[in-house]
Parts: sequence; structure tokens; C-alpha cells
Amino acid sequence: TPVAYSSGRPKPFQYTTISPGSTPFGSLDRRYLTMNTVGYVVTVRNNEQNSITISFFDLSRFTETHFEDLFGYDICSLNENATLFAQSKSGQIHYRPHSAMHSNWTKVLPLQRDEKITSVAATNKRVYIGTSFGYLRTFNIFGVPLAVEKVTPIVSLVANEFRIFIVHYSPFNGVSYSLYEQGPQSSKYFQRESPLPIFVPQSGLGSSGRSNDLFTSFNPLGIKSMFFNIYGDPCIFGSDNLLMVLSKWRSTMEARWVPLLDANIEIWKMSGGKETSDVSVWPLGLTYDVLNCILVKGKNFWPGFPLPLPSELGVRVPILVKSKVLQETKNKKKLQSEAEVAMSDDETKETNEELEIPVNMAAEEEYIRSKVLSSLLSDTLENDGELYGNENEVLTSLVGTQDKSLLRLFADACSEQNSDKAMSIVFELKQDRALNAAVKISERAEMLGLVRRINAIREAKFEEQMNSIE
Amino acid sequence: TPVAYSSGRPKPFQYTTISPGSTPFGSLDRRYLTMNTVGYVVTVRNNEQNSITISFFDLSRFTETHFEDLFGYDICSLNENATLFAQSKSGQIHYRPHSAMHSNWTKVLPLQRDEKITSVAATNKRVYIGTSFGYLRTFNIFGVPLAVEKVTPIVSLVANEFRIFIVHYSPFNGVSYSLYEQGPQSSKYFQRESPLPIFVPQSGLGSSGRSNDLFTSFNPLGIKSMFFNIYGDPCIFGSDNLLMVLSKWRSTMEARWVPLLDANIEIWKMSGGKETSDVSVWPLGLTYDVLNCILVKGKNFWPGFPLPLPSELGVRVPILVKSKVLQETKNKKKLQSEAEVAMSDDETKETNEELEIPVNMAAEEEYIRSKVLSSLLSDTLENDGELYGNENEVLTSLVGTQDKSLLRLFADACSEQNSDKAMSIVFELKQDRALNAAVKISERAEMLGLVRRINAIREAKFEEQMNSIE
Amino acid sequence: TPVAYSSGRPKPFQYTTISPGSTPFGSLDRRYLTMNTVGYVVTVRNNEQNSITISFFDLSRFTETHFEDLFGYDICSLNENATLFAQSKSGQIHYRPHSAMHSNWTKVLPLQRDEKITSVAATNKRVYIGTSFGYLRTFNIFGVPLAVEKVTPIVSLVANEFRIFIVHYSPFNGVSYSLYEQGPQSSKYFQRESPLPIFVPQSGLGSSGRSNDLFTSFNPLGIKSMFFNIYGDPCIFGSDNLLMVLSKWRSTMEARWVPLLDANIEIWKMSGGKETSDVSVWPLGLTYDVLNCILVKGKNFWPGFPLPLPSELGVRVPILVKSKVLQETKNKKKLQSEAEVAMSDDETKETNEELEIPVNMAAEEEYIRSKVLSSLLSDTLENDGELYGNENEVLTSLVGTQDKSLLRLFADACSEQNSDKAMSIVFELKQDRALNAAVKISERAEMLGLVRRINAIREAKFEEQMNSIE
Repeated sequence: TPVAYSSGRPKPFQYTTISPGSTPFGSLDRRYLTMNTVGYVVTVRNNEQNSITISFFDLSRFTETHFEDLFGYDICSLNENATLFAQSKSGQIHYRPHSAMHSNWTKVLPLQRDEKITSVAATNKRVYIGTSFGYLRTFNIFGVPLAVEKVTPIVSLVANEFRIFIVHYSPFNGVSYSLYEQGPQSSKYFQRESPLPIFVPQSGLGSSGRSNDLFTSFNPLGIKSMFFNIYGDPCIFGSDNLLMVLSKWRSTMEARWVPLLDANIEIWKMSGGKETSDVSVWPLGLTYDVLNCILVKGKNFWPGFPLPLPSELGVRVPILVKSKVLQETKNKKKLQSEAEVAMSDDETKETNEELEIPVNMAAEEEYIRSKVLSSLLSDTLENDGELYGNENEVLTSLVGTQDKSLLRLFADACSEQNSDKAMSIVFELKQDRALNAAVKISERAEMLGLVRRINAIREAKFEEQMNSIE
Repeated sequence: TPVAYSSGRPKPFQYTTISPGSTPFGSLDRRYLTMNTVGYVVTVRNNEQNSITISFFDLSRFTETHFEDLFGYDICSLNENATLFAQSKSGQIHYRPHSAMHSNWTKVLPLQRDEKITSVAATNKRVYIGTSFGYLRTFNIFGVPLAVEKVTPIVSLVANEFRIFIVHYSPFNGVSYSLYEQGPQSSKYFQRESPLPIFVPQSGLGSSGRSNDLFTSFNPLGIKSMFFNIYGDPCIFGSDNLLMVLSKWRSTMEARWVPLLDANIEIWKMSGGKETSDVSVWPLGLTYDVLNCILVKGKNFWPGFPLPLPSELGVRVPILVKSKVLQETKNKKKLQSEAEVAMSDDETKETNEELEIPVNMAAEEEYIRSKVLSSLLSDTLENDGELYGNENEVLTSLVGTQDKSLLRLFADACSEQNSDKAMSIVFELKQDRALNAAVKISERAEMLGLVRRINAIREAKFEEQMNSIE
Repeated sequence: TPVAYSSGRPKPFQYTTISPGSTPFGSLDRRYLTMNTVGYVVTVRNNEQNSITISFFDLSRFTETHFEDLFGYDICSLNENATLFAQSKSGQIHYRPHSAMHSNWTKVLPLQRDEKITSVAATNKRVYIGTSFGYLRTFNIFGVPLAVEKVTPIVSLVANEFRIFIVHYSPFNGVSYSLYEQGPQSSKYFQRESPLPIFVPQSGLGSSGRSNDLFTSFNPLGIKSMFFNIYGDPCIFGSDNLLMVLSKWRSTMEARWVPLLDANIEIWKMSGGKETSDVSVWPLGLTYDVLNCILVKGKNFWPGFPLPLPSELGVRVPILVKSKVLQETKNKKKLQSEAEVAMSDDETKETNEELEIPVNMAAEEEYIRSKVLSSLLSDTLENDGELYGNENEVLTSLVGTQDKSLLRLFADACSEQNSDKAMSIVFELKQDRALNAAVKISERAEMLGLVRRINAIREAKFEEQMNSIE
């Protein structure tokens, strides 16, 4: 006799509405429907109807807008041209250009029983609507339908021109993402329903210990925000406070998720090495190497009202070992205070102002980070050319940083007389002047074999260049 | 101490045998082993042994066959040349050409403990056998083994010449599909174990409310049928009564599942807008834009005995909003009956004969549908050439339909004096005569700016064509 | 009200540490940290600290090493140059070259709360570290960090030069694998997080019935070992005792997992057709067509102390049907003993020495096997050239084997006067002398139509060759 299939099945997953940066009501009558580097949209729950306010960070370009909401819009996408709203259950969508020169439109989309809209995205070219049953509907910005297709259930999506970054979840296929270009002439997936390596909150496994349950029922996958950075690379910021960027995404088999910032580590550093849960990071967007965000204090880890001013956090690849940093800091403090009164360990930890990152660790981080950023940037340059005019300059500076951080590791290997390790670092150097500096450092360390080997490399590279000129 | 791994695991999934269109015994002594546009195979359970009948729709080409089945075959694949049977537990397979000129053969395949054959497929080139442990075995049509490989567990498969469309399920990897070509010279996956966006029935989530539990234990993933349409595009019809076709499948990263028909909506339309559960659709195959199917009435949603005559349903992309259709219908009725006696809402709904699809909604559907069908067809033409001789003709007519439906949307935008929207539609038009018609419509709407912009486009296109000739 | 997401979730999976060939402590104070064709590493648990011994199979090249382990290393990778250790919870890694000319190094990696290192791999080029949170860190062999990326949680990994074969598991994305090349100039996935068709042990579903629960908590996915064969093809050996190799892995869409050996069947054959659980196979590595392994006897299915001498098992594609083999054996025995005293069935089974594999079954196995091996080998030759100098020779011999086994199947078809089947086999023959042999066989079977058809093929092939010369 056949065994009932349902016995081994997970219970139905409750799809919610996830817009980038959206927050739960919590105990308040208002919440952010969405939030990014352009601005934020707030809905206020009244008895009879809601009211919605669209606010902007750049007040010189945009004007705050307010309107009464008869339909209970609970999903939102905000860009520089317009705001797009959706009501998850009725299927109504509403498009509002910021400029009064263009007209609003409203449309109802078909939903099956138990289906709901989970997320929407508007760009200056397209409107994309995703549902819990995996219907992905594409419209132009005047509401003319262009395509319907079916994918695994959609949890959230964001878009940039003709490109869509989708997060999918189903109990049968787990957490995945798609990166999809629906151009006017042709459509192409860069990635389709590939596993997405985000941290998924589970009961008892919350990352911060604060108000997690409330947030998890609001946003089961813990996606604080998704966005494209200013060069068009897809980014995601999860409830583990990790910012990841998709590198080399134009090539399906070269793409990889790179961790660019562990906000928990940055807060730990800010608080001088104390495990704190007073401050949290709410992401807005990534502009090259700086995360725009809201620093949130208090009980909830999402922003309340009014919205605090945005902050900036420089990206840092998470390779810091906390215990090593604390030890280095203690050593430094001890050195400094040898002439002073002796201090207990505990007291050292209390005066938590300046953490000492071990020199090598800092050099390693800088090396990896400049490599990641230059890989992202050179990919953009090769494919889209200069978008802001200074990309080639930035790229040159990144290569310099890469070599400088390697030379610091090289010097350290020389100080240990480890010529094999030193040589392995030489192979990573990009510029001739860095090779030259490596020669100088090895001379000072009296490692003449190393000097010879590096000079041989320089000559070989010189020959190669000469030959390629002829 | 390590926690037992099994604690968090789903219970073992019970693999069943799923042939295209196969039905459960239910309370009867007979069931359909398989069913498609060629015919159907019925097994009758007797005390000692079973008897099997192979029947065909085209009686001019094929003759019904009957034989006694000593082995209890429970899996079947029927094509124009032969019928292939398998016994899921003993591993015995049996190949019977329809023509007496070719000989039958029988073979036993190795199965491990708890392993079972879940599905088989025969084409005029190959025999494919899939098991619950993921063994995929390929034979030529005389039973000579050609390949063995291991994939994720196979739930069902169908084949077309050298191509196999496989549905996989495992509690660890969810519902996925492969599209695989095992040619004489080389083998290649178009898609391998990619997430398949079908609706999977879950307890309490059944789509029709009728005899779901019985069917779900017979066919846990609710796959009513899988087949290739007459142009060789893979199709699947799930228990949510949605027909999906895989478009652009020859390119791994361009392929996408397009919903081509929501049979629930069609039945709703047939019943004049009533939610009914009296009629259900049992699919046989897709011939370009028409679904061949059995309309089933009664308690079960699968066909009983004798088999009702096949019906045809034209494909329709599901973008209809029921509430809007009912409202339009009501408005129309009210208009018609203004001179007549006033009718209550309920009565209006009762006389459920002619539903009014709003003009715009119909145009939108027609536009999307003709775009989907022409994309499918042009993909076939580019790769396989004309298969039936009329493909280019059909394609031209589809482009015409596309433009005509767009012009209806264009006219509507003009009637609202929305020139931005009207212009956005112009960009989608394919033919010059459609652009010309758009000029006429805008002239009538007295939108002279729009006329100028469309004429500019016509001229630019004309220039381009001239230049490409030189 | 939103339903708690956790209700439908699997309980957190306990990540363990899986090195190739590693064994649990069981009731002993020692266990193998890793084991492969180079050697094995043993850790002994003492009260205060552990001690570790690195042993080698080739004593002419390597010397056994012993050291005291203060850190409790529980993960290990052994290659011909060095041993790499890791402590899963503290994040400490330790690299020890076998040669005293090169220096050891130790490094601590950052781990988040609840994160652990699950596996490490060292090649002569790179060191790779994988964690339960999906951090994949790459270093050169001197400990200089080269890359950090995030993938789905890593269960185990092995590496070969710049290539990494990773097994992933997460409750959300199931069991998958990646094959990744992180070269000095560029990085590329051959496969990324694709479903891996291994047997996953579930409660009550163990494959051998012996000490499974203990092993399953030690190694939840039942991966006895992972390695690259001597030609660089990824292999995996699961708890179902199946050896699989990834064929055509250089092409993402042509790659497929081929079962190369079912060790259970080989043991069944060794024991003359008895279902035994006395002997088990513990894999070390694959050298072309021979599995190096330890034959384990006793309660546990992993090796104890001291390590038994390695054995060799020739690969065999699992297509044997046990019942057919037993029947053939019985028939043969009966024939032999007709002159002797009559024996009962049971007694026949008792004298289990020589199993008779039916001739056709043996020929089918040999055909598939030589096809698989020649496909693997020709892929290596085309891409990497000859690695050991005899590859072209081996390949020629494999083509000969292929044709010889086909001719046996051809002769059988002729003996049944089945000319269609015979002809279908002719199409698979590679060499002209095989075609010639087929002609001879069909002449002897007096199938003149068949002779004509084969000769026509021979002539067509000859013409083709002549034309391609001109």
C-alpha cells in the first residue's frame, strides 16, 4: 500500500512580502515599505485607510510625496523615476512616476487561490512582478504586458534596467537565485535558480539574539536588502549582517559570491572589541567600496521613526581573527604601559578604544579586498566601459594597493628568512616597480638567492614585453 | 556528542510508477497504463494474471492488440512503432513492436534492494529506463545496452528520438528536470537537474478538492502527463491543470517555462464563470496551439471506462482576471437589459452563458500568446527547418496577430490621449503596415506629436533597410 | 497572522569533519584521520594530548613521521609533498611538508559562532579550507591567502593541483557538488552546486546493516572517500559501496556520473553468490581500471588497527542480474553433475566457488565498461596529452575490447537469426576488422542479407576514408 506522501513533507511555507529594506510594523502603526540610496517609503496604518509617504535623501532633486492609500499596498519598489506599489493579495499594482509630467497607472493581476504577489521591481525600462507560485510577469513602464513565465516561487526581486536579480524559495528546491536579462531583442539567464549561499535564520539560530522571531515571521529568509551596486553588480545583505556581491556574474561558470563586509565585525571593531548588541546595520546600497547604511540602536535591529541619518562603512573582506586582534591589542597596550601602573586584563578590555589589527592580517585583508574590487571593476570596464569616467584611475590605484599589501607580506617572509614563501609572493606582484621594491627588501634581508630569482623574473618579463612589441 | 542525523530528515519518499497519462485503479479492476495522442494501454487485474489491451485513436493505421500479462507490468510507453512495458519491482522489461514483422524482446534489469523502475520511454531509436535510485539505462530498440549513468532519482521520463525529458525528485534535491540528448555520436544535456517549477500537491493544498488523496499517493508529484509537442518542445501538465512548455530549450541559459494554458480557467469560462468541479481536463498531447485532451466528468478527475472521445482546447496564456471578466459581463448584461426587467446580481450570474472578456485583456493575451508561439516556432525553424511544410506560413500569420493585438492596445492608449504609453507600444510593432495603421489611428485621435514620432521611426527603419541592401 | 517559519523546517544539521577515508573512533582510542593511495594518518587520543603518525605505503620514497598534537587536529589531507591538518572548532590549520627542507606553518582562520571547518585539501600548488557556513578559503602552500568566497555549506573537499571537488549539503539545498579550477590566471567552475546523485543514508535505510548508526553520526552523507583518479577525474565512493566517476567533466553540459563499481556485487561474487556481511570495502584510490582498497572484515565496515594490506578490485559496470547469474551457475552445475550423484538446490548453493556469468551479460558489461573507460581516457588525452606515456596504447586496446564484446553479442543475435538486432550492433562497431569478423559470423549463420548490408557499410566507410585523403 502506498504511504501517504505528505507524511514526510515540510509544512507549507508562508510566503511574505519582501521589498528591499522593508521593515515590520512591530508595535507601531507605521513601517518602511522599502528603503534604498534614493529614499524610503513609509505606510501608516489608520482605521479606515492607510497613508503613504515617499521621501528622498537628495532633496535638491526630489520632493516628498504623500497620498492616501485605499488599497493597502504592502509591497514597494522605489527608483529615481518612479515608485511602484502592489497589494499582495488583491493583485493590484500601482505605478507613480515622481514627475507630474507622466501619468500614474493601476492594474489588477490574476492570482490563483492562495497565490500572492511577493515582490515587485521597477526600473526606468521595465516593471517586474513576482509571486509565491513562481509567476514572473514583465510589463513596460506603462503597464503593457510583455512576458509571462513560470519559475520556482519568488521570495524577492530587484531590477536594474533590463536585469532582474531574483531570490527563490520553495520547500522542494531550497533557497536559490536567478540573474536574468530580459532585453528588448533577447532574453538570457546569467544564472538560473542556482543555490544562493545566504544564511537562513532557523529557530534558535538567530544571529543577533534580538527580536529575531518577529523579523523571521516577517521575512523568513532574513534578507535585509538586495540591490545592484553603482556598477550594476548584484548584492545581498542577510540577517547574519554579511554583505555579499556577485563577482564575474556575466559568465555563468565564473560567477562567485564574495563576502565584502561582515557588519558584525565592523561593529565589534567600533566598540573596541566588545561583543555588543546595541548597534546594528541596516543596509541601503553599495557605492563601489562603501556600504551606505543606517546604524540602528535599541531593541529592534531595523530602523524606527524618524529615520536616522545614513552612515558609511568601508568594505572589508572578513578574514580578521578576533582573538588575534585582542591579543595584539593587549600586547601593544602592555608595551605602552610598561612605564605606567600595571593594569589587569579586564581593565585593558574595558578601555576599548583602539584595536590593533596585526600588520600581516591587515595586509592580507587589503590584498584580498583590492583583488576582489579590481576584479569587479575590470569586469565592468571590459563589458560596459567607463560609467563614471574615473574607473581606469580607480583600477590603477587598486593594482598599486594590491602590490603594496603583498610587499608587506613579502617583507615579513624575509624577516623570517623564508625565501620559498617570499618567492611565492613575488609571483603575485603585478608591477615592475613592485618587483624592484622586492629586490630592495631582499637585499636588506641579505637573501641573495632571492634577489637573483626576482631579477631573473624581471628580466624574463622585460624580454616578453620587448618581444610583444616587435 | 554528535546528534543523530536522521532527526531532521524527511521520511523516506515512496517512489511510484508514473507513465504519461497513467491512472490509478481506484475502485475498479482496470486502469490506463499510459495514454497519449497515439492511443492508450489498459491493464485489467484478474485473479491469476492480468490482461493488457493496446488501443489506438487512428484505426486506419493501427490495430488494437490484446495479450495476457503473466508478469504484472505496471509501467508503459506507447509510440507509433511499439509499446514498451516494465514491471517496477522485478525489473523485467518487454518491448512489443506494433508490426508483426519485428520481434518482441524481454529482458531483466538489475535492481538493488528497495530500488524500483519508475518509468520507461521508447522512441523509434532508443529505449530508456529510469529508477528510483537514479540509474538511467539506455538500450537500442533491440535491447542492446548502450549506456548506464547515475542521476538524481527519476520520477518520470518521456523521450523523443534521441532526446529524453526527465523529472527527478529526491527529499534532498527537490523537484528537478533534465533535458538530455544521447545521440549516436555524442551526448549532451540541455538542462541537468534544474529546478522544475511545477505545482507539487501537499496535504490540504489540493487544487480541485476531488479524490486528491488517492491520486497523490498514486502520483505524488501530480504529473498528469509529460510529452513533447509536435515540434519537439517538452511539455508538462500538472495537477494544478497548468500546461507549461519549455521555450528556447536548445540554449541552456535562454530556456524558460511558459504557461500556455490554465485548464481551470478554460473550464471556468466554459461554465460561464462558475466555480465548478464537475469537469476536469486529462491531457493527451499538444499539437502546436491546441491541447488534445479528455474532458472528464464525475467523481474522479482522471478518465474512466470506456474512454470518452478526445476534445481540443486552444491554448491561452493565463492573464485573465476573473473578477474583471465577471464585471465586464455584468456591465454588458445591464446594458442589454436596460429596456428589460431589472435582474438581481445573483440571477445574472446564474444565466452563465456568454462571458465578456474585456477587449484590452483579450488583446494582451493574444499579444503574449502569439509572441510565445512564434518564439517556439522560429526556434524550431532555425534549428530543424520545416517539419510539416507550413511553418513559415504559420509564423507570418503569428507576426500579423501580434501586431494586430498591439494595435488594439495602441488604440486604447490613444483614446486615453496617453501618448507615452502609445509610443511604448509602437516600439513593439514588427511590420511597416502596422506602423502605418498606428499613424492612422493617432491621426484620428488628433495626436499629432505621436504621428510625427511614428513617422520618424518608419523613416529610420526604411533608411536602415536601404543601407543594408547596398 | 504569520505562521512561524520554523515549524516546517528540518532541525539544524550537524556538520562533521570528513576527510577522505577518515574513520570514527568507535570504541578505540585511535582513528584514521585520512587515508589514500599515498598513505594514512592516525591520531591517538591520550589524556592530555593527542599523538599523530603519518604512514606511507611506498616506504622507499617516504618515511613515517610522528608528532605530539597539542591542538587536537581532527581534519587531515595527505599528498605526496605534505600533510595538512585542521582543528575544526578553533580554526587552526597546520601544514607539514614531508621533506625537512621545507618549513611547517600554522595559522588560525576566523570562524563565526557555530561555524566549523569541515574539510581541507592540500595539493602541490594550493591549500583549500571549507567550512560549515560555506566559506571557501584559498591559500598558496606557504599560507598566503589568495581568495575567499562563499558557497553553500561544505561537507567535504579534495583537490588536485588547481582543481577542487567539493561536496555541499544544506537542509535548504540538499546534496550537491562543485568542480572548480582556481588557476593562477583565472578561475572557473566546471560544475557549481549541481545535484550529486549519491546514496544518502537515512534512518532504517542503511545499506549493510552493520554499525551504520555510529558511522552515520560520524559521516552523515556516508562519503567513505572522495579522490581524483590518476588521470584527474573526480571519483566518489559512498556508503552504498558504489564507486562513481565523473565523465566528460571538462564540459559542463556533457558531464555525467558513471557507476564504475558496485563493491557489494564484487563481494557477492567473491563469496560465490551468498549475501554476506562479513567483508566490506574501504576505498583508497582509483588507478585507471583498478580500485585500490582495504578489504575489511568484522563488526565495523571501516578498517581497524593495524591497517590490513591494500587489495585491488577491477572495475565492473553494475549491470549484473544476480538471479540470472545464480540460474546460469545452477544450470552449469547440473550439467557437470549429471553423471554424478544428484544434488539438492540448497547443496548447490552451498558449494559457492565458481559463479557462472551468462556470456551475453559478460559481453554487455565489457562493452559498456570499455566504452566508459575509453571515453574517460580520450577526454584526458585530448585535453592534457599523455600523462604516463602509454595512454594511446591503452586506448587502442580498449577499442579492441569494445568491438570484441560487441561481436559476441552479434554472434548471439545471429544464432537467433535476428538480423535487425544483429545489424543494430554492427552500427556500433569501430574497426574494419571487426566488420570483417561480423561478415564471417553472418556467413556461418547463413544470413546472406546481413552479409550484404555489412559489406555495403564497409564499402561506404572505405569510400569516405578515400575521399577524406584526397
